[in-house]
Amino acid sequence: MKELSSLMEYRKGVKVVDATLRDGGLVNDFFFTDEFVKDLYKANIKAGVDYMEFGYKADKEMFDVNKFGKWKFCNDEDIRDIVGDNNTDLKLAIMADVGRCNYKNDIAPKNESPVDLIRVATYLNTIPSAIDMIEDAVNKGYETTCNIMAISAGQESDIKVALDMLGKSPAKVFYIVDSYGAIYPEELARVIDLYAEFAVKYDKKIGIHAHNNQQLAFANTIEAVGDGVDWLDATYASMGRGAGNCAMELLLGFLCNPKYNVYPVISFIEKHMNKLREDGVVWGYDLQYLMTGLLNQHPRTAIAFTKEGRKDYAEFYKEVVAQD
Amino acid sequence: MKELSSLMEYRKGVKVVDATLRDGGLVNDFFFTDEFVKDLYKANIKAGVDYMEFGYKADKEMFDVNKFGKWKFCNDEDIRDIVGDNNTDLKLAIMADVGRCNYKNDIAPKNESPVDLIRVATYLNTIPSAIDMIEDAVNKGYETTCNIMAISAGQESDIKVALDMLGKSPAKVFYIVDSYGAIYPEELARVIDLYAEFAVKYDKKIGIHAHNNQQLAFANTIEAVGDGVDWLDATYASMGRGAGNCAMELLLGFLCNPKYNVYPVISFIEKHMNKLREDGVVWGYDLQYLMTGLLNQHPRTAIAFTKEGRKDYAEFYKEVVAQD
Repeated sequence: MKELSSLMEYRKGVKVVDATLRDGGLVNDFFFTDEFVKDLYKANIKAGVDYMEFGYKADKEMFDVNKFGKWKFCNDEDIRDIVGDNNTDLKLAIMADVGRCNYKNDIAPKNESPVDLIRVATYLNTIPSAIDMIEDAVNKGYETTCNIMAISAGQESDIKVALDMLGKSPAKVFYIVDSYGAIYPEELARVIDLYAEFAVKYDKKIGIHAHNNQQLAFANTIEAVGDGVDWLDATYASMGRGAGNCAMELLLGFLCNPKYNVYPVISFIEKHMNKLREDGVVWGYDLQYLMTGLLNQHPRTAIAFTKEGRKDYAEFYKEVVAQD
Repeated sequence: MKELSSLMEYRKGVKVVDATLRDGGLVNDFFFTDEFVKDLYKANIKAGVDYMEFGYKADKEMFDVNKFGKWKFCNDEDIRDIVGDNNTDLKLAIMADVGRCNYKNDIAPKNESPVDLIRVATYLNTIPSAIDMIEDAVNKGYETTCNIMAISAGQESDIKVALDMLGKSPAKVFYIVDSYGAIYPEELARVIDLYAEFAVKYDKKIGIHAHNNQQLAFANTIEAVGDGVDWLDATYASMGRGAGNCAMELLLGFLCNPKYNVYPVISFIEKHMNKLREDGVVWGYDLQYLMTGLLNQHPRTAIAFTKEGRKDYAEFYKEVVAQD
C-alpha cells in the first residue's frame, strides 16, 4: 500500500505533458485550426501544464505535406505563429520518430527554434538509431526524452539492455509507452520497478504515456505517480489514437500541486472538443480497442474496424482471437 | 507491489455479480423488454457470471407501479417468467433499499421464491434498519450482503462502528459502494484494509461496487481483486446511474478463472446495448460526472445536467464548486 502522504502531498518533480496535438493528430491527420491550437496553447498556460507537444517532425520526403495538417511537420515558423517568442513557463515539445524523421537536416539548433524538448520515439529494436537522434538533439541544445513504444510486447531482458544503453545516452527521461493499452496497474508497477533500476543508476527521470483501451489510461498514470514516475502525458478529452490517452481533465483534478488548474481544460473541451466529435473525428474507448488491448495486439485492426464503421463486435472478436 | 502470482493465478472465492438490470434500470426507469432480460440471463449463464441482480424490491406504496418497469419491484412471478426454475449455476439476486422496501410483507420465504440473494443497501446512518432487513432475509432462508453506500463520504470511525455492528449480523458480505465515483485506487486500498479488519474478525467476505465518474470503476475493481476482495459488481457496457459502473466486458477479460468467458458479453452488447443508446438511454463517463466525483459529491446535480441536455461544462463546474 502506498504512503498516505503520497496522496495528500505532491512531488515537485512532476511534469505534465499535453500530447493533444501530437497523439490527437493521429485521428484527424493533424488538421487542427489555428484557433484550436492557439486556444490550446493558452489553456495549457492557464492550467499550469509543463510541456505542450505540437506534433511530429515528420520527414517531408516520406510524407506528403498536402495530405496532412502542418502539425505533422512542425515547422519552427508555424509554431512561432502560435506562440510568438513564448515568454511563458510552458515549454514546447515535438516528437521525432525513429525512421520517419530526417533529424539531421530538419531539426534546427535550439537557439534558432521555439522548441525546448525533442521527444524521440522508438521501438525496442531501434535503440541505436534513437540514441543517434538523442545525441543529435542534445548537441543542438535541446532537452530530450526517449519514448519506448509498445513496451507490453517487449521482453524484460530486452528492456533491460535498452535502458542500459539509453542510460549512457544524454536523454533526460525514459518513457514507458503502453501503445497497445494492454498493461494493468499491477503490471505497470513491475515495469516501473525495472525502469527505476536504470533511472537511479544513470540519474534519469521516468515518464508514462498510457492508452485507454481498457479504460486504464488514467488509472495507470496515477499508479505511476504513486510509484515515483515524474513525467506524465495526457490529452484533452483523451484525444488520441484509437482509444485515446489519459484525460488531462482527470489528471489535473487528481494532482495536488496547486500550480495545476482544471478549469481552463474544462472550458477548452466545452469550446472545442465536442465540436471535433460532431465534425466526425472519432476516438475513445470502444469494444474493439478493449479487445486488442486485452490480447496485447497493436490497435491497427481496431482502427480499421472503426474507420469502416463496423459494429459487429462479436465477429471482430473472433478475428482478433484468430490473429493472436 | 502485489505478488505476481495474483495476476497469473486466480482466487476461487471470486464472485462476479451482474448489476445491469438494477443499476442500469436507474437510467431507463427499469423499462427493459422481456427479450433483453431473457438474453441477459442467457448471456450471464454462458459467461460464467455468478449472480444476476434483477432489480429492486421497491415498496409499491411508495412507488407508482405505472411509472416504472417491473424490475423496480421484482415480483417473484416476473422473475419466474424469465428463468423458469433456474436450473443453472447462475444465482439470482435482488436489492432491498433501507427505507424504500416493505421487506416484511414483500419478500416471500426463500422456498417460495426463485431469488437466492437479498442485497441490502444502506447508508452509514441507517445500519440498524439494514440489520433488521438482513435478519429478516436470513430468517426467510436467503443469502444476504450488506452494501454500504456513499462510503467516500463516511468517516473512518463511523465505518468501523458500522462494520462491527454488521459483523455481528448474519450478512455474508460487506460491500464497499463508491456511489460518488470519488475514490482513487490508492484510497480504495486503505478502505479495503479497514473492511478486512472486520471481515477477518467476523468471517465475512468483502465486495466492491464502483462507479465510473473518474474512469476508475474497472481500475478500482481490479485493485480490489488484488487486495483480497471477492465479490465484484459489474454491468454490461457499464450501464448504470450517471457515469455507470465497472464494465463486465473489461472485468471478465481481466479475470483469469477459466470459468469466465467474455464472448457472450460482447455478443449481448452488440445486440442490445448500442440499441438502448440509440433509443436515447444515456449513461457513461462525461465531464459533469468527473466533476461531482472529483469533489466527492452525490451525482444528482450531474444527472440533472445530463437530463436537461446541458453542455455548458464550465458553468456547471462553477456551480458544483460553489456547492462544495
